[in-house]
Order: sequence, then C-alpha cells, then structure tokens
Amino acid sequence: MSRLRVTEKTGKLYLEDLSTGQTFTSGAWVMEAAKIKEFASEFDPQPFHLDEDAAASSIFKGLVASGWHTAAVAMRLLATGNLQFANGFVGLGGEIAWPRPTRPGDILHLESEILEIRPSRSKPRQGLVTLRSTMLNQNGESVYVLTAKLIVPRRPALTVE
Amino acid sequence: MSRLRVTEKTGKLYLEDLSTGQTFTSGAWVMEAAKIKEFASEFDPQPFHLDEDAAASSIFKGLVASGWHTAAVAMRLLATGNLQFANGFVGLGGEIAWPRPTRPGDILHLESEILEIRPSRSKPRQGLVTLRSTMLNQNGESVYVLTAKLIVPRRPALTVE
Repeated sequence: MSRLRVTEKTGKLYLEDLSTGQTFTSGAWVMEAAKIKEFASEFDPQPFHLDEDAAASSIFKGLVASGWHTAAVAMRLLATGNLQFANGFVGLGGEIAWPRPTRPGDILHLESEILEIRPSRSKPRQGLVTLRSTMLNQNGESVYVLTAKLIVPRRPALTVE
Repeated sequence: MSRLRVTEKTGKLYLEDLSTGQTFTSGAWVMEAAKIKEFASEFDPQPFHLDEDAAASSIFKGLVASGWHTAAVAMRLLATGNLQFANGFVGLGGEIAWPRPTRPGDILHLESEILEIRPSRSKPRQGLVTLRSTMLNQNGESVYVLTAKLIVPRRPALTVE
C-alpha cells in the first residue's frame, strides 16, 4: 500500500514526502523494431541491434534492443510517469542489470520502489534517495533493473511575512 | 603498457587474448546542444535537458545532457573503437556513475581498462570480463564511469582435418 503524499501545489515530491517501501507503476511502452535499429545506428551499431538476419545467428538468436535503448526507455517512463521529484530526476549513479534482452514488440513497464532515504550531512537542504526500478515485459519477465541514487531536495521552509 | 594481442584473422578478441590491466583509449565525441535536446525530447524530457533558460535556473545552472545520452555516447565510442570482442559487447550489467554532467561543446573520450577476467564455470565456452570505462571531458574531468560485466567467448578449438 502506498503511503505517498503528493504536495498540493506542484504535485512534485520533496524528501519529506517519501518513505521507504513506496511503490510506483509506470505506463507502458512498446519496443518497435524500427526504433531499435534507429537507436542502434546512432549509439550501438552492432549487428544484433541492426539487422534481423545478422541477429538470428548471434548469441541473442534474433534482433534485440541495445541495453542503452532499454535504459533510455526506462528513463522516459520515469520522467513522464506519476512519480515526480521536486527537482526532477537527478541521478548520481547506481547499479544496472539486463537480465534478459528486449525484443521487437515487447510491451514494457516499470515498477519502482523507494529502498532508502538518507538526509545529506554536508548539504542540509537535500537528501539521497535509492530508487529501484524494474522493467518487466508482457510476460512479467524482468528485462532491466536500475538501482539509482537520486538527489532529492527538502521542502523549502515556509516564509513568514 | 598494453599487452593486447589482436587475433590476426578478425581483429576481434577472445577471452584468451585478454589480460587484466590492459587499457584502451577511444576516439573523441563532441556533445552538441541540438543532440542533447533531441535525445532528451525522446527519452528524458526534463527542463534542464531541453531548454537553456529553464536549465539556467536548475541545479545544473545550464543545459546538460541526459545521463543516458552520455551513457549512449559511451557505448558508441566503445562499439566503434579499437577494443572489439569476438561476440561484440554483450553486457549483463554493472555499476554506473555520473560524477559531473556533460554540457554542450564538451569533447568526450573513454579510457577503458580490463579489471577482471573470470572463466565461466557453468558455460565452458565463455567467460566474464569486468571492464571499467571512464569518460573524460576536455578538461580531463571524469563525467561518467561504467564498470560493466561482459560475456566474452573463448577462442573456438582448432578443427583438425
């Protein structure tokens, strides 16, 4: 059960609005073959991302998206989803895994959970939030897991006039 | 000093060609403002990746590339560079960090090092290679570090006719 409180004014979340165990489900995204090839042409020009025939004889036995395309789609699902931090998504880094490839026609969505919330000692106006986002395909199989450290600001103090 | 041995026939590397401590330097890539916005429009539509004015008042104090754009550029530098594994780059996952943002006009390159080589126990024809790739900007500052676990095949046995 979500204990999410959304700030009334902006709908965006400050550190004080978050608690560990909160979960968020994204919308869906269909991975299209044309987009797989387009992304790969620009950023990951390897045969198994570019050409069905070449991919058929690769370790993947068929066309697969670049892992970085999958990661980029995950970012889009986060950035356009119902979980919005007050400063946006500002990531320092984290852990990344691709347990399975994503393939043309896959219908993908993200399930995210707040794992840890840590107020900053050096910067009192912000904290570090650990968010794990798991991307699942239409068969419920995990294709991507990002466990990211994000900077989230504290709520600004009220101004007394 | 590199102890790299390149296989004569393909120029591509098998597990037996690798040793820890081998280093590889990529070509350069210029991060352009138009490309920053184009990538962000598709995958990371946040104000500090899309619009100079909005970015000026953000935590970044200016337009910055999506971290996933930086990651995708790193993949391109690897995929088109002088370090080529026999099966391509097949990554299982790893650790990722963005110590600094990348900005329009930044000239980026990668310095990669093989940290570990571990033959697979369950799959005798392949092994796991840990490759750390650090992306540096024109000031020698680290903007991105990926420490990835890659599947690399063993050299096929010779066929005696």
